[in-house]
Amino acid sequence: MDDKLMLMIPGPTPVPEQVLLAMAKHPIGHRSGDFSKIMAEVTENLKWLHQTQNDVLSLTVSGTGAMEAAIINFLSPGDRVLVGNNGKFGERWVEVAKAYGLTVDIITAEWGQVLDPEQFRQVLEADTAKTIKAVIITHSETSTGVLNDLETINRHVKAHGEALIIVDTVTSLGAYNVPIDAWGLDVVASGSQKGYMVPPGLGFVAVGARAWEAYKTAKLPRFYLDLGKYRKDAAKNTTPFTPPVNMFFGLQVALHMMRAEGLDNIFARHQRLTQATRAAVKALGLPLFAPDQAASPAITSVMPDRVDAEQIRSVMKKRYDIILAGGQDHLKGKIFRIGHLGFVSDRDILTAIAALEATLQELGYEGFTPGSGVAAAAKVFANA
Amino acid sequence: MDDKLMLMIPGPTPVPEQVLLAMAKHPIGHRSGDFSKIMAEVTENLKWLHQTQNDVLSLTVSGTGAMEAAIINFLSPGDRVLVGNNGKFGERWVEVAKAYGLTVDIITAEWGQVLDPEQFRQVLEADTAKTIKAVIITHSETSTGVLNDLETINRHVKAHGEALIIVDTVTSLGAYNVPIDAWGLDVVASGSQKGYMVPPGLGFVAVGARAWEAYKTAKLPRFYLDLGKYRKDAAKNTTPFTPPVNMFFGLQVALHMMRAEGLDNIFARHQRLTQATRAAVKALGLPLFAPDQAASPAITSVMPDRVDAEQIRSVMKKRYDIILAGGQDHLKGKIFRIGHLGFVSDRDILTAIAALEATLQELGYEGFTPGSGVAAAAKVFANA
Repeated sequence: MDDKLMLMIPGPTPVPEQVLLAMAKHPIGHRSGDFSKIMAEVTENLKWLHQTQNDVLSLTVSGTGAMEAAIINFLSPGDRVLVGNNGKFGERWVEVAKAYGLTVDIITAEWGQVLDPEQFRQVLEADTAKTIKAVIITHSETSTGVLNDLETINRHVKAHGEALIIVDTVTSLGAYNVPIDAWGLDVVASGSQKGYMVPPGLGFVAVGARAWEAYKTAKLPRFYLDLGKYRKDAAKNTTPFTPPVNMFFGLQVALHMMRAEGLDNIFARHQRLTQATRAAVKALGLPLFAPDQAASPAITSVMPDRVDAEQIRSVMKKRYDIILAGGQDHLKGKIFRIGHLGFVSDRDILTAIAALEATLQELGYEGFTPGSGVAAAAKVFANA
Repeated sequence: MDDKLMLMIPGPTPVPEQVLLAMAKHPIGHRSGDFSKIMAEVTENLKWLHQTQNDVLSLTVSGTGAMEAAIINFLSPGDRVLVGNNGKFGERWVEVAKAYGLTVDIITAEWGQVLDPEQFRQVLEADTAKTIKAVIITHSETSTGVLNDLETINRHVKAHGEALIIVDTVTSLGAYNVPIDAWGLDVVASGSQKGYMVPPGLGFVAVGARAWEAYKTAKLPRFYLDLGKYRKDAAKNTTPFTPPVNMFFGLQVALHMMRAEGLDNIFARHQRLTQATRAAVKALGLPLFAPDQAASPAITSVMPDRVDAEQIRSVMKKRYDIILAGGQDHLKGKIFRIGHLGFVSDRDILTAIAALEATLQELGYEGFTPGSGVAAAAKVFANA
């Protein structure tokens, strides 16, 4: 039905009406006092969201631009880095690092499995010469719905003492607790179309003191993504290059909403949405792709065995106007992914599960009790 | 007065209401057929606007990101480039080229003066060994309001036979005739918040066959700005990284408006706005900063001698809610700049000039006949 679209993909995520309307305001000059006021407020709220006193810099890029900035500002050609790869975005880290001529050691896990922190510990402990300059990982692996154990891996990095930790939190920030200062995370990248509840078009990089120290001697070439320029100008509440003014209008409103909800409530809501979704999928007899103990707060991947994943997506879209994500690369056609990140309520999960049940009925999928998915999700909500 | 802002700066430029409202629509998935349809249409219209059959690629960046992409995809470390520098954006080309370790020869002119094509001819003719890999210039120098003679400089580049021509058309595209195919321009960069009538947040790079040939052997590192990735995906009406979906909604509408107006009308309008503005400024006895024969179609710079430029900007803003641009770098406080780029009508010029006259009266500026500025602009319109 026209204009009835319901996005349940991991990004773009749903955007509140007040954010959209803010974005429809006429732009103002980005060198004006009015814009500086917005930027000052937005920056303060970004620091709140990141739980940090570090710089949190805003760039006109998508998430990959933020990831690239998170690497190239702190390393030099040939530097050895240790990258975790258990999905499409781990793979992207590897590609970026290689594109810039870094020496890339990779710790892998199967797509759908979690990175083993123990492997990081071993490699880091073996590196007595301290040749590893950075450990680079994806926190919530969007392609599979796996949440890697950032806290433990980071502890091993801290024990190493020299390597920076560089993290893609694109689908965990604003959904899961990532206490940057408490954990001492050096570089943290994210993007607006995720937990932020804003359309795509802005990337963010949080940078700590140790990373700025590395910046001083980092030799990889950069200009547009040179975070030193953004830092210098952010101190004056401005930007080195023209910012996407209307995106900032939207971000300003979205951050107000997030502060009003509160971090603990935001994290609890995502936890609840995740549990309800997983309980429902299990009740429907559909296999979950990622293990319970490593469930992403942003996305639940399902690998149906007796019904076609693409057919499910197709009926969900055509009949119920609900967009689910498909699998990427070798998982194309094998899994579907339910996004529950950002501006998503308990009601949205009930809706999606109800439509999923109806879809399964239409496709003649047997072996589940109609209503059992909604009942399982409702039970999670009742007990939350 | 609240909500009465009138932007007369060279970017962000005014945005039509229908573009703003399109941007306020809920985002759709960027991997959907619906988005591909939009992208297909937008790409076709971008080619129309660029007067080219070349690829025109859309990136989530500001203008500087597009400029950087225009360099790093086609050159290798140490490559010799010849850069024109007669203002802040010429200077930026130099900075980007140096940040990537290119060997940079510079042809300069004073800020406010035009680059001398003859100097390009001499250097290019002297380069019989064909060591110059690219000539890089700014077409409309936003910081001064000077339009460089791209057509003649490009002719000398073509006579050289080896060097690529790489052009910043950020404030000329969609305002002045830049026939990419007819002139054989290799790489042309621009940004959405200018002639496109869209807020900032998208950059564009048009790339021709000779440039793609150079791309094959170009060794500068790149990933997010790797235009080969964008080209490959554009062929399938998609993007390598998440595009700013809502910006595309706006761009789609803006390009409809541009096609409806027609290229010749768009160029004629900007020509008329430029002439009217310059005639008015002259009538008011204020010195123009750039010469008539090199007047930018986007911006008119004024260097007042008997009244303070910043005071003019301040009164224009406080009393009339009209934002003019100030000078940049060493021109700060010395010039003011009237933007007339994009969604600007004859009426807007009459308005700005009327307010400028009122401002001059308030500041006690003497030596002009009140009403003479508006009369001079009106005369241009009457005869157009």
